[in-house]
Amino acid sequence: MGKGILHYDVGEQIELFLLIKSATKGTASNGKPFLTLILQDQSGEIEAKLWDANDDDEKSYAAQNIVKILGDVQSYRGKSQLKIRQIRRTGPADGVKLDDFLETAPLSIEEMQSELTQYIFEMKNPNIQRITRHLMKKHHKEFMEYPAATKNHHEFVSGLAYHVVSMLKLAKAIAALYPSLDKDLLYAGIILHDMGKVMELSGPISTVYTLEGNLLGHITIMINEIGKAAEELGISGEEVLILQHLVLSHHGKAEWGSPKPPLIKEAEILHYIDNIDAKMNMLEGALERVKPGEFSERIFALDNRSFYKPVFHK
Amino acid sequence: MGKGILHYDVGEQIELFLLIKSATKGTASNGKPFLTLILQDQSGEIEAKLWDANDDDEKSYAAQNIVKILGDVQSYRGKSQLKIRQIRRTGPADGVKLDDFLETAPLSIEEMQSELTQYIFEMKNPNIQRITRHLMKKHHKEFMEYPAATKNHHEFVSGLAYHVVSMLKLAKAIAALYPSLDKDLLYAGIILHDMGKVMELSGPISTVYTLEGNLLGHITIMINEIGKAAEELGISGEEVLILQHLVLSHHGKAEWGSPKPPLIKEAEILHYIDNIDAKMNMLEGALERVKPGEFSERIFALDNRSFYKPVFHK
Amino acid sequence: MGKGILHYDVGEQIELFLLIKSATKGTASNGKPFLTLILQDQSGEIEAKLWDANDDDEKSYAAQNIVKILGDVQSYRGKSQLKIRQIRRTGPADGVKLDDFLETAPLSIEEMQSELTQYIFEMKNPNIQRITRHLMKKHHKEFMEYPAATKNHHEFVSGLAYHVVSMLKLAKAIAALYPSLDKDLLYAGIILHDMGKVMELSGPISTVYTLEGNLLGHITIMINEIGKAAEELGISGEEVLILQHLVLSHHGKAEWGSPKPPLIKEAEILHYIDNIDAKMNMLEGALERVKPGEFSERIFALDNRSFYKPVFHK
Amino acid sequence: MGKGILHYDVGEQIELFLLIKSATKGTASNGKPFLTLILQDQSGEIEAKLWDANDDDEKSYAAQNIVKILGDVQSYRGKSQLKIRQIRRTGPADGVKLDDFLETAPLSIEEMQSELTQYIFEMKNPNIQRITRHLMKKHHKEFMEYPAATKNHHEFVSGLAYHVVSMLKLAKAIAALYPSLDKDLLYAGIILHDMGKVMELSGPISTVYTLEGNLLGHITIMINEIGKAAEELGISGEEVLILQHLVLSHHGKAEWGSPKPPLIKEAEILHYIDNIDAKMNMLEGALERVKPGEFSERIFALDNRSFYKPVFHK
Amino acid sequence: MGKGILHYDVGEQIELFLLIKSATKGTASNGKPFLTLILQDQSGEIEAKLWDANDDDEKSYAAQNIVKILGDVQSYRGKSQLKIRQIRRTGPADGVKLDDFLETAPLSIEEMQSELTQYIFEMKNPNIQRITRHLMKKHHKEFMEYPAATKNHHEFVSGLAYHVVSMLKLAKAIAALYPSLDKDLLYAGIILHDMGKVMELSGPISTVYTLEGNLLGHITIMINEIGKAAEELGISGEEVLILQHLVLSHHGKAEWGSPKPPLIKEAEILHYIDNIDAKMNMLEGALERVKPGEFSERIFALDNRSFYKPVFHK
Amino acid sequence: MGKGILHYDVGEQIELFLLIKSATKGTASNGKPFLTLILQDQSGEIEAKLWDANDDDEKSYAAQNIVKILGDVQSYRGKSQLKIRQIRRTGPADGVKLDDFLETAPLSIEEMQSELTQYIFEMKNPNIQRITRHLMKKHHKEFMEYPAATKNHHEFVSGLAYHVVSMLKLAKAIAALYPSLDKDLLYAGIILHDMGKVMELSGPISTVYTLEGNLLGHITIMINEIGKAAEELGISGEEVLILQHLVLSHHGKAEWGSPKPPLIKEAEILHYIDNIDAKMNMLEGALERVKPGEFSERIFALDNRSFYKPVFHK
Repeated sequence: MGKGILHYDVGEQIELFLLIKSATKGTASNGKPFLTLILQDQSGEIEAKLWDANDDDEKSYAAQNIVKILGDVQSYRGKSQLKIRQIRRTGPADGVKLDDFLETAPLSIEEMQSELTQYIFEMKNPNIQRITRHLMKKHHKEFMEYPAATKNHHEFVSGLAYHVVSMLKLAKAIAALYPSLDKDLLYAGIILHDMGKVMELSGPISTVYTLEGNLLGHITIMINEIGKAAEELGISGEEVLILQHLVLSHHGKAEWGSPKPPLIKEAEILHYIDNIDAKMNMLEGALERVKPGEFSERIFALDNRSFYKPVFHK
Repeated sequence: MGKGILHYDVGEQIELFLLIKSATKGTASNGKPFLTLILQDQSGEIEAKLWDANDDDEKSYAAQNIVKILGDVQSYRGKSQLKIRQIRRTGPADGVKLDDFLETAPLSIEEMQSELTQYIFEMKNPNIQRITRHLMKKHHKEFMEYPAATKNHHEFVSGLAYHVVSMLKLAKAIAALYPSLDKDLLYAGIILHDMGKVMELSGPISTVYTLEGNLLGHITIMINEIGKAAEELGISGEEVLILQHLVLSHHGKAEWGSPKPPLIKEAEILHYIDNIDAKMNMLEGALERVKPGEFSERIFALDNRSFYKPVFHK
Repeated sequence: MGKGILHYDVGEQIELFLLIKSATKGTASNGKPFLTLILQDQSGEIEAKLWDANDDDEKSYAAQNIVKILGDVQSYRGKSQLKIRQIRRTGPADGVKLDDFLETAPLSIEEMQSELTQYIFEMKNPNIQRITRHLMKKHHKEFMEYPAATKNHHEFVSGLAYHVVSMLKLAKAIAALYPSLDKDLLYAGIILHDMGKVMELSGPISTVYTLEGNLLGHITIMINEIGKAAEELGISGEEVLILQHLVLSHHGKAEWGSPKPPLIKEAEILHYIDNIDAKMNMLEGALERVKPGEFSERIFALDNRSFYKPVFHK
Repeated sequence: MGKGILHYDVGEQIELFLLIKSATKGTASNGKPFLTLILQDQSGEIEAKLWDANDDDEKSYAAQNIVKILGDVQSYRGKSQLKIRQIRRTGPADGVKLDDFLETAPLSIEEMQSELTQYIFEMKNPNIQRITRHLMKKHHKEFMEYPAATKNHHEFVSGLAYHVVSMLKLAKAIAALYPSLDKDLLYAGIILHDMGKVMELSGPISTVYTLEGNLLGHITIMINEIGKAAEELGISGEEVLILQHLVLSHHGKAEWGSPKPPLIKEAEILHYIDNIDAKMNMLEGALERVKPGEFSERIFALDNRSFYKPVFHK
Repeated sequence: MGKGILHYDVGEQIELFLLIKSATKGTASNGKPFLTLILQDQSGEIEAKLWDANDDDEKSYAAQNIVKILGDVQSYRGKSQLKIRQIRRTGPADGVKLDDFLETAPLSIEEMQSELTQYIFEMKNPNIQRITRHLMKKHHKEFMEYPAATKNHHEFVSGLAYHVVSMLKLAKAIAALYPSLDKDLLYAGIILHDMGKVMELSGPISTVYTLEGNLLGHITIMINEIGKAAEELGISGEEVLILQHLVLSHHGKAEWGSPKPPLIKEAEILHYIDNIDAKMNMLEGALERVKPGEFSERIFALDNRSFYKPVFHK
Repeated sequence: MGKGILHYDVGEQIELFLLIKSATKGTASNGKPFLTLILQDQSGEIEAKLWDANDDDEKSYAAQNIVKILGDVQSYRGKSQLKIRQIRRTGPADGVKLDDFLETAPLSIEEMQSELTQYIFEMKNPNIQRITRHLMKKHHKEFMEYPAATKNHHEFVSGLAYHVVSMLKLAKAIAALYPSLDKDLLYAGIILHDMGKVMELSGPISTVYTLEGNLLGHITIMINEIGKAAEELGISGEEVLILQHLVLSHHGKAEWGSPKPPLIKEAEILHYIDNIDAKMNMLEGALERVKPGEFSERIFALDNRSFYKPVFHK
């Protein structure tokens, strides 16, 4: 599809198909309505304003439509903004489809599935293995497609599965260095820790929180799921309680959403692994957009810090 | 049984049957072992030291035994302490039994049961009523006997049921003043909010935390219970989610153990009612032991404050 | 007066008399001046922009004027906004008056006065009763008319008296359940706790802080008033000190404005009662504007939470 | 009186008259009572244990008695402790009197009085001057004798007046460098800021908090005093309000006891001056007891820090 | 140069030469570009919008250019704003130069230099004196010209030197009142404490942070400088370590940027002196712009407080 | 040497050579002196009391002496304590030497040295490599022998080098999973991050803080060292600044001692790696002392949590 929207510099003209991620109506200070469009392709997203938007525009340029745009990349308050010269909705003749515009995980679902199967296969404790396999099967489709969050990190199609697979690899490497770690617990804890997101979030695109997500949250939802799985499988050992504890405590502190802090060694390490993979994802995302010798945009979930790319990192 | 241990003043001599609540062995600074006994009757408890305790003493004066003591009430660091002159273990001939020494709720189990039944009966929403009744039935025995906590407030036999009944009365009065409140939700939320304690705590006496209590806590345990109850009863309406939210949020804030804050009006009010009844129980307990014109002992759960009893409160 | 401004839905056209609560001049991004008007009637308030406002407009449409407006209710950033088609200032011929546009307490001043008199009459301690009656008499007019705050809760004409009467009813109900509470102290504490607002705030409408309010605050002001009252009445018992303490500590913590936390049982309960009535007022206000199945606007003073109205709350 | 108790090193034998500052009874781990005595002379204080203390000892060696002691200075957990060999109560024949054992300000009451008079004399604003003079006169005796606190800083006889005089000198120096400061306000604020301590504290020796001190605190007490003074003097200008604000805000922040932070330039500076003089007093006290190259004892009110005395500070 | 821009009231017309401090391009809500200009002369600065700015305008009205403006002072959200009627860039014929528009310290560089020399001359400890003199010489030019900060306080040409000279005078006055203070340490600590700013900041005008400033900060930079100076001078006594500690700890707390809190008496006092001079500078700056009886703008670095100027401060 | 002291259960009798780690004199409540001895061998340490200790005992049983003890392992407040029956100082005839009693890293100095050499060898950036090699050479002896801390983690001989080697392995594994990481920076940052401890701490045994450690801390000390190394090697590229930043920021937050937070990706990851290795060391240390189904002692540096060892972890 040629160069993505994120790779155009300020001052360049673009002529691109873009997906409308969201469209919000506003009233300009001259009293006329306008639309704020967030436009995206697989390279990332950009904001654009459509001035003097009438009712037809509002319908034509709603979220999830694909448009063809002729315009200029400008700078506004230090961020890129698209100045629209021409815009039109696409039709069948344009030969474009939704999937071409969505950011997705760098691994295919098949590759990730194969990794996950292997890690579950390696588990030696049958109770832990059966519960994990049961829940993976139950939520399989959503688990492979949902993002890991609505923003901050892994906020793309299949982001949840990709985050989990990356954590599993990290866990394997760490467990090799500290052999006292129970790999079964680590692997199962990683696979289950965010699985509740398939009920907390609405789906892979235009993701919002469900009512259950708002009132209970993915941690509490998942504790229930583990409880039900154990009952259905007739498993009652301490493993059930420990797996629930791993999920319950993975945010690390009460004020971060875990009513119990980690009280098992593997729960503590799971919290660290989750943190490293999430932060690496944010850091790589922010730094790939800057040149050596520059500071990145501020990253909210990293205490709003702006990171520097050394000049010798050419 | 005559005057309780708490009603003796410093300087008085006592000759009483007392229950050993706990016995901890220590080594005195002269190298000899001693026992720290917490002795109780229904009026309250007092500490005593048994010096030069040998191995037989350690066995005879273990927790849950009833002893007969001759001694003097003394003052040590501003608290009463019992100086033991004579101590002996009781036998069948003494005609004393465990129940006579345990602090219990001021209402009988029958009275409280009758109140609870009435409140459940008054519920109009059948889903809410059925779930509440089901869980009350399932955990009935423990619910009527357990304390509400190991310390701080309602830490006596049947303290949990007494706390719940007091809260229900308070809820009824408040709902009469603010008619927009949903009484069904309030009553059900109150009955269920601490019910998980029957699994978090070990039992009505010498209460400690269970492993499940340590690793999950009564809130998470109870969310599971409501989920299971709904499944068994075939109820799937929004009421299930809302009841789980009421329990989940009743500590008010993440740092106090609720991963979601109250997001329903009745959840917010439930948190206030819980707070008022717990704090009134602490305040009344602390102030009944001081005379007008004096300050109470410091109350840890009230920010370690010491409360004053006005002189005109004779 | 027909349907209030708050009861029109987005898309509806209105033709209404409205009171200008505030008018702020701004410069549009095209360099021309405009007015931001907050318009109100007894149902609530709505924002409107008056574009291209000249100097005459600025004078005509100043705060406290009543206008007749023809316009459309629109949505702007999730809040309703009024698009003005025609606006004119009203004159005597329109037969409208200020009082018809002000939100006031749901009870009349006479009803509230009668309640207050009764509660003071019930006090048994003559010192407490005389001080309360003296101060009520001294500040009577303002006490019955002032709001309880400039925003957040009870921010309407007679809001202060209404808040106090609601708290008194709550106190009566609570004292019936916990008989150890001193009703005289509770009632007097409630009547006096916010009375300093009649000096902290400027008046019942377009309320702002006075210099005394800014530099001392209503709590400190009221401590002085109680001291003076006691001196004038020749009362010197511990009751004076305790009443001052009740007022001083009613915000509960130093960081919330009480240099001493509650150190009297009734002071602690007064703080809870104040909290419940204020929060119920906010919650009811926010939730009456949403439909079942929706979340309310964020409520700043409730940690910026958005509350959910269950679907079964039809 | 020879070398003071603080100037004896560990290992030295002493034979001294000492004042009993406090005496607390305890029970040793062998079951026998003992007394913990805090003994003082003008150089400072030291702890001593009197083992196997009988009832007569308890009476003889109560607080405020002067004793003659033969003993050894020992080290216990890094602090000096006195091992008592012989102790006896003194009588008229010993020719010792209370005043000889109390730590007092390094300036005489006459000197401090003269300084205070001069600063009040220099005030140009008659309202400020009259209120200050009136209150100084009203509380004169206590103001000249009370300590500034029960511990931490200026905790000696006439400590309050000494602290105020030191602050006045500091204010004069600072105002000379920043001429925009209003010296009248600064001087009056300094003289009045802690004057409420004469009602908050019980007296110059064995100082404890009064009930009024506990329930209201010296800041609130003093606001009342300024209000009364203004009324008695018939002064009603903004100066009254500003003086009350200076006192109210002098702790700087709500969580440190000032319900309003400084909102006047002189109030802000008053807070800094108070801080500097209090901290200098603590630092000098702690450092005069250590040798160059050593760290001082931890100073609780300075975040529990231990300060180093450089080797080149011989 | 006549009346400065800050001394014009809202409503007045101006015709002035002004320096463009910064110029930021924006897009108006009608889609057209505009420039936000911050214009300054020695009296202070004002914001102005230049609507419909074309590319030529963007070049002509860039930062550091001097312009002649005809316009009106207006009020926008409580702050003054300049409405531009005519604007033109100046040329040699206008006879204006950069220095005439920059705010500078109220003392000349020569006066400040002479003060600094005198304070260094008074030092008695040769190690302290030599290190201070060496570093002062090394960074002399920048030290005399840099501001003390990019905003908040002493943010003008030579602000750093002026801040240091004011602190030295304050130190002299305080040391006279507390003779135990080591004047050498105080003076050297004051001169060195912020000297690292000559490497942390980019220069005297349009000041931004350097990379070294962002990644290390002026405190760490200066520790290095003292270390190097000592090495070059062959000084190795405890004085080096103590001077480094004075600089390291001068922000007072870890969360304010000092990894070690003050652990030397003079370090503690240095922190207070720094604070007083910085805050006095902010307070005087904010209050000179308001009339008696008014509140100042909010001062961010003083907890966002707004300060009141008493009516009797005419 | 047979079974270590830590492997004896309560109730067992021991006859062992032990090293006195520390000896503190106290006064028993009967007035007689005693010694609190911390005794250690390579398995760990235990506390013992030596009652009625005379002056000779104090000299014989000072720290760093090896003693032979006959005694019983007892339990005191949940911790093991040694009851001494016989104790005697050892002499040459006993054939025991200091090294046999010290806990040391599980890898030999040679093994660790070889690992370190290899990691430095792998660095590709010559500036980074040269600085690292230079500093490693300069502080080689101490770096290989010092502990990583006085308590909490890696508090044993060669603990610093062992901690660094473990972190390097972890870094290698993580960098393999996230190839965007600069391995040179990570490896150099890890080797240098705590090297300042060789000046902050006093040595490998009986470790305390040096004056430089107290007043500057290991981070600030090391920044200086890197600066000096670069100067000596004539290196001036951005690498010097970045290496200083890595060391400066490795505690992650200002309140944890890093005046600048990580602003380079590798600095952020270095902080996580440091954390994981330190916490794993604490967790393994605490859990190896408990049996499956038990909770560990509380670990202060892990928020005082007590960790559970699952029953299925046999």
